Amino acid sequence: MFVRRPRPGGSVRPYILLIERGQEPFEGSWALPGGFVDYGEDPDLAVIREVAEETGLDGLPFRQFRTYGRPDRDPRGHTVSIVYVAELVGELPTVEGGDDAAKAAWFAIDELPMLAFDHDRILGTLISVLGLR
Amino acid sequence: MFVRRPRPGGSVRPYILLIERGQEPFEGSWALPGGFVDYGEDPDLAVIREVAEETGLDGLPFRQFRTYGRPDRDPRGHTVSIVYVAELVGELPTVEGGDDAAKAAWFAIDELPMLAFDHDRILGTLISVLGLR
Repeated sequence: MFVRRPRPGGSVRPYILLIERGQEPFEGSWALPGGFVDYGEDPDLAVIREVAEETGLDGLPFRQFRTYGRPDRDPRGHTVSIVYVAELVGELPTVEGGDDAAKAAWFAIDELPMLAFDHDRILGTLISVLGLR
Repeated sequence: MFVRRPRPGGSVRPYILLIERGQEPFEGSWALPGGFVDYGEDPDLAVIREVAEETGLDGLPFRQFRTYGRPDRDPRGHTVSIVYVAELVGELPTVEGGDDAAKAAWFAIDELPMLAFDHDRILGTLISVLGLR
């Protein structure tokens, strides 16, 4: 999830929504919000549910980006993640960590922390493909 | 997998690679080639393996298209499919059904049969997004 936030003079500065993990693995690390799809749940709805649980933001306009499935990307076992992106324009919505997320916060795209799992790689690809930097 | 096959006069006619299913569900129906990712297998490699097993074509230049995960799309249970596309230009390579596929064959895009599962929907979206018709 990211927001293009207007700056004085007409340019924009993109912000990315991250969560601080409240559980192992990578407890205390920042990561992209997300979680596991329930059996029988449409992944297009699971992303909305998970982001709402972890950040308080509901009903975001997600679209699929790419699917990541390399077997070494999660120490818990082989995990396939469908990455979605939602783009907003304007001021940053208030967020609040919940469920597995100890915190939720916006980070300017040029001030990102190190991320858990392969999320640095995912976000790098996303930033490049969307031309955010 | 599809091929843009040149026609006299310089235009092209796109062909899609399909298999006839040799097992239930949808035994005897045509479908997109594919199968299940093994645990510990990169999906980007699984697609190459499955298409080689079912059609005899190996090492195709696949890229991800979209991921489909609606819970009602496979009667065997909730199944998430990562759809890949590979595009060739020229004459149609020889194909041969194998493994779960009773047959493999090329179909001109304007002469497609009804497909199993939600593959009509997937292929319709693909044809539209890639501007093949």
